Amino acid sequence: MKSSTSLKMRLPALVLVLEIVIIALYAVFVTYDDDANAKLQNNQTNPMDNALYRDYPYFADVQVMIFIGFGCLLAFFRFYGFSGMVFNFLTATFAIQWAILIQGFFQFYYDGKIHLGVINLLNAEFACAVVLISFGAVLGKTSPVQLLIMALLEILVFAVTEWAVLKYIRINDAGGTILIHLFACYFGLGVSFVLYRPRLNNGHPKEITSYHSDILSVMGTLFLWIFWPSFNSALTFKGDDQHRAILHTFIGLSSSTITAFSLSALFNKRGKLTMADIQNVTLAGGVTVGASVDMMISPVAAYALGVMGCTACFLGYKYMTPFLAQRMRIQDQCGIHNLHGLTGLISSIAGICAILLATEETYGPSMYQIFSHRAPPEGDPKLLELQKLIPGLKPGLGRTARDQALYQLAAIVSTIAASAAGGVFTGLIMKLQFLASPSDEDCFDDQLFFDVPSDFASIEELKSGAISNEKGNVDKADSKV
Amino acid sequence: MKSSTSLKMRLPALVLVLEIVIIALYAVFVTYDDDANAKLQNNQTNPMDNALYRDYPYFADVQVMIFIGFGCLLAFFRFYGFSGMVFNFLTATFAIQWAILIQGFFQFYYDGKIHLGVINLLNAEFACAVVLISFGAVLGKTSPVQLLIMALLEILVFAVTEWAVLKYIRINDAGGTILIHLFACYFGLGVSFVLYRPRLNNGHPKEITSYHSDILSVMGTLFLWIFWPSFNSALTFKGDDQHRAILHTFIGLSSSTITAFSLSALFNKRGKLTMADIQNVTLAGGVTVGASVDMMISPVAAYALGVMGCTACFLGYKYMTPFLAQRMRIQDQCGIHNLHGLTGLISSIAGICAILLATEETYGPSMYQIFSHRAPPEGDPKLLELQKLIPGLKPGLGRTARDQALYQLAAIVSTIAASAAGGVFTGLIMKLQFLASPSDEDCFDDQLFFDVPSDFASIEELKSGAISNEKGNVDKADSKV
Amino acid sequence: MKSSTSLKMRLPALVLVLEIVIIALYAVFVTYDDDANAKLQNNQTNPMDNALYRDYPYFADVQVMIFIGFGCLLAFFRFYGFSGMVFNFLTATFAIQWAILIQGFFQFYYDGKIHLGVINLLNAEFACAVVLISFGAVLGKTSPVQLLIMALLEILVFAVTEWAVLKYIRINDAGGTILIHLFACYFGLGVSFVLYRPRLNNGHPKEITSYHSDILSVMGTLFLWIFWPSFNSALTFKGDDQHRAILHTFIGLSSSTITAFSLSALFNKRGKLTMADIQNVTLAGGVTVGASVDMMISPVAAYALGVMGCTACFLGYKYMTPFLAQRMRIQDQCGIHNLHGLTGLISSIAGICAILLATEETYGPSMYQIFSHRAPPEGDPKLLELQKLIPGLKPGLGRTARDQALYQLAAIVSTIAASAAGGVFTGLIMKLQFLASPSDEDCFDDQLFFDVPSDFASIEELKSGAISNEKGNVDKADSKV
Repeated sequence: MKSSTSLKMRLPALVLVLEIVIIALYAVFVTYDDDANAKLQNNQTNPMDNALYRDYPYFADVQVMIFIGFGCLLAFFRFYGFSGMVFNFLTATFAIQWAILIQGFFQFYYDGKIHLGVINLLNAEFACAVVLISFGAVLGKTSPVQLLIMALLEILVFAVTEWAVLKYIRINDAGGTILIHLFACYFGLGVSFVLYRPRLNNGHPKEITSYHSDILSVMGTLFLWIFWPSFNSALTFKGDDQHRAILHTFIGLSSSTITAFSLSALFNKRGKLTMADIQNVTLAGGVTVGASVDMMISPVAAYALGVMGCTACFLGYKYMTPFLAQRMRIQDQCGIHNLHGLTGLISSIAGICAILLATEETYGPSMYQIFSHRAPPEGDPKLLELQKLIPGLKPGLGRTARDQALYQLAAIVSTIAASAAGGVFTGLIMKLQFLASPSDEDCFDDQLFFDVPSDFASIEELKSGAISNEKGNVDKADSKV
Repeated sequence: MKSSTSLKMRLPALVLVLEIVIIALYAVFVTYDDDANAKLQNNQTNPMDNALYRDYPYFADVQVMIFIGFGCLLAFFRFYGFSGMVFNFLTATFAIQWAILIQGFFQFYYDGKIHLGVINLLNAEFACAVVLISFGAVLGKTSPVQLLIMALLEILVFAVTEWAVLKYIRINDAGGTILIHLFACYFGLGVSFVLYRPRLNNGHPKEITSYHSDILSVMGTLFLWIFWPSFNSALTFKGDDQHRAILHTFIGLSSSTITAFSLSALFNKRGKLTMADIQNVTLAGGVTVGASVDMMISPVAAYALGVMGCTACFLGYKYMTPFLAQRMRIQDQCGIHNLHGLTGLISSIAGICAILLATEETYGPSMYQIFSHRAPPEGDPKLLELQKLIPGLKPGLGRTARDQALYQLAAIVSTIAASAAGGVFTGLIMKLQFLASPSDEDCFDDQLFFDVPSDFASIEELKSGAISNEKGNVDKADSKV
Repeated sequence: MKSSTSLKMRLPALVLVLEIVIIALYAVFVTYDDDANAKLQNNQTNPMDNALYRDYPYFADVQVMIFIGFGCLLAFFRFYGFSGMVFNFLTATFAIQWAILIQGFFQFYYDGKIHLGVINLLNAEFACAVVLISFGAVLGKTSPVQLLIMALLEILVFAVTEWAVLKYIRINDAGGTILIHLFACYFGLGVSFVLYRPRLNNGHPKEITSYHSDILSVMGTLFLWIFWPSFNSALTFKGDDQHRAILHTFIGLSSSTITAFSLSALFNKRGKLTMADIQNVTLAGGVTVGASVDMMISPVAAYALGVMGCTACFLGYKYMTPFLAQRMRIQDQCGIHNLHGLTGLISSIAGICAILLATEETYGPSMYQIFSHRAPPEGDPKLLELQKLIPGLKPGLGRTARDQALYQLAAIVSTIAASAAGGVFTGLIMKLQFLASPSDEDCFDDQLFFDVPSDFASIEELKSGAISNEKGNVDKADSKV
């Protein structure tokens, strides 16, 4: 007997509890930060110097990526467009409001309050991106209730990991390669491992696209592509660091894109292009430049990273995703291990190389700003000297390049461990019967959780063979005649 | 006999007249404002301080909302996608160019000229938003000629009302709750009241969506959602005020969205989600925080307003829209009374509460900037003292909080009265026979005003029962067999 | 026998060669510009003064135009949506990375290196826009390999022409009317002339739209419309010049749009609107204001230019495109000669008029900044005087208005000549057999270069008459019964 998947009581009950908790926490703990507090404005403050004007443009760009980019990209299934786009909307919205609180406790908490500004929202959107990437691993097989539970727990594990890595290990990771992409990937794989559905290992009749869903999904890819430079540069230092981050991301994406096209044609039996490659593999360059995105790696290195990341990602889709599903019981629905895991590992290694190669000759004194943990510690006379050249330089830990490289490695290992463990744990919770998990046959089907309009092609039709998955040019009307 | 709905002469004739009038007015009255005038630039002016850089980013965001957000959202009907998106384009374009002139006379006119800058365009876009909201009330039942006439008259009534309220009543309404949402709502209902079509009270066979139109419409919602913080904050003071406006709008939308999902599932017979709720009700929070969006209401209040506004909006769709149609002969096609009226009223009350609760302890001296009418009048010694703390503070009217609250109330009442009356009058004009109003059976059908491609599902097919509106999973091909 | 159109070896081989060349050139020649170079930052540089913050917002807007705007607009064919959107993605991505190098050599090369900053990327996007406009002339009839070759050569010819015109002729062309629109148009027509396909002169059965492709295409138009002010103003002087550019572009587009609607209805047999007009002709105003976009032409002139450009463009589609195809063997698929050529010519003439009419009385001393070649030459005492009023004014050539007008004329003629010749030459290369050019019957069909999903309507179905192009309301299912 199938267990019920009605959202009638489950979803409202869960949302109600969450809202009561959030309202209580907001009421007790959240106040405005200095840039949003009317009381702190006076004749010393210039309105146009408000942090808003530095952060909001990047916040808005990331918003487009989260809601339109991910939303359209995840709507690529033929019978799962509503769910892909709308569950993304729900999950993202909840993840951000929850991350404002949880990250707030770890990063914006002082004087007994979480201090709220657009910068907090921007950080919360990155936390949200983590959840959405993990969502890709279980797309089509989860109820909205399960997704909210996933967001609830993933944000918690993420915020703790982020805090621990930034506070104790202290790394360079401007584009979020380690903390966003690797974390999201292994968390998602952990969840997917627990939610393994052996009967779906040979595919599902509804696991197909349609002409329009493919176009919609490419639009999502394009929006992600366009605003990725903003994503990778939103949290760097302002000025030349952010400038380089934008250049590298754009260059990496460019080389990645043309590489993806050529690999797609090369590996296709009939020498044609495959839309799934264009929807996913083109973006690999954006992740691959991440860990070194603000460093002086030179434009050609960004270009080469794009080509390498794209190739790894493409081969991952071709060979590794099937292997994971068949042998490791990890069904990675959207191939996040290729787009975020493999590229993330390459990016992390590139970041370590860039750290090892960094010299004052290349960076000038701002080396100690970018690699802030290499700055001399408080009290060191070299610090005073450097502060004359770079006003506002903060004391560091006096690490050598090699030290920093080892800390990066430690961060990679511990992030992967924490995320995989967190993912497995979260998967176990998500498996609880009353969370409305869809049965195997109801996967990838909007009808399960949506009232669908009358032109929604029915599953009955599919079963009766009206929709053929094999030959590209068989039309349903044709096959009926 | 049906009256002709050919646009062949009507539309060109109307546009020609309008263009001649606009060109004449532009020629005689419009010049550049100081920031766009080459002659006024010299060694005292810094190009990067040009007002352009403060206003253009918000202008661009609102542009996306107007043309893509509204355009896609209004394309939700299955056979009315061309019309929804394209009439929105036409109406918006005309409304803005017309508002530049009309609002210009009331707000940017001095030395015998309307002075044009991006700030004028930004204001015109808000006037345009008013027209597009009202458009929602009569979607599917109006010709483009009627829509142009509506824009022509609504901009006039709006500009006069706005000028009178801002100049004589003087209110706080940063997010435009009163002047934009309430005005647009009651104007639209007024028009709809006059254009009442009794035969459509029990629905129309073409009043349905399709799988793709629903997805398109959600995309519109998402674009509106993403850029709503820019909309609500575009005309606040710069600095902390705008910062708060963005925070509150984002928080209000977030809580509103998850509430909308839970109510959608709760009230659905089978515990499923309804796309119409997700397309509309999720946005309620953006309107509800409007009237107090720049005030120090605290983040938790924005969160609670989102939940309240969303609940009122949802219940409005459920119970009030049918009631208005059946008993009050007001057919509110897109439910603007729920999304803009009910939420607008809640927002207005919240604004009044926020005004009554505002103290110098919370706001510091900038209280007299935000609540500018409470600032001491010219000559008051307290004004000089305050101006030392807040340079550039303008003299006010010395109102108390209670005074201001009463003026807000007066503005609400008079805006509703003016807009409803204006709407009824405009409706009467729009009813004139030669404006190509569609017959009842031709409503919600792109074929009336567009050359449609050959795959456009025909009304004949609909009538023959090939498209069933009742059961979600009946496919037209199926029902043919 | 058809020649093979498999991309299996062709595309990867070409991309591999291009990538090796690009990597080599990047490695040897490309470094960071001053604003992206960490070494050059010190206590004298303010991070927030980085050129990034002036250029990036416009870069991002143009990105949306290039990838989403063009991408959706070009996806208007029913069976060619994948190709329209995806080939645009490929071509644009390659064109930009190539233009960074080629334009870099001509405009950003000093000390033996191309200096890379966001400004370089922004320029490269304009070069890319040139390629995409030309692409419109041959849409549906070219393989991705041919398109890459076209981009490769067109960027070369464009960069040389741009450099020669800017360095030797020296013109005013803020909106890129001459160098972008006229160049792109006549280059595209040149290519199209060589690739003439006589058998397609009477149309092709697949040269039709669908309901969804028309909507998608309008979305593209709307994105282009929204961000066109950024496009036209991205490379002007900052301050009042950019402010005017934005105002004029918006006004020109507005008047152009309502004119397009009225002409569409006026010239339609049944007085209905035609989607193709709305997709294309509405945009004419944006091109038409281009050449004088930053000048003090007065708002009414921008309005009138929008009306004129739109009218010319509309009549061009109606009468000139068929004439070119029938008599001149120029098959201009998307009518770029109407939207970019005719409007470009009108715009150029308007620009010349604006130059002839410019006086110090209207512009003040900043006349010599806008019309920089009219500034007094080095050593002229008037220059010193002017530099007191406009700090940073660069010495000019002391041209009179009439001089400058003649130079503009020279630029127009030589740009058209260079682009047409370049286009013909490029067309000859593109005709080479091994570039996978589609056969006449395979034109406008995604199946040639893509794996398509099972619901892709087949060409067989088309031939069997299941899809009728003539009557708007014949459904394929209907005609089968």
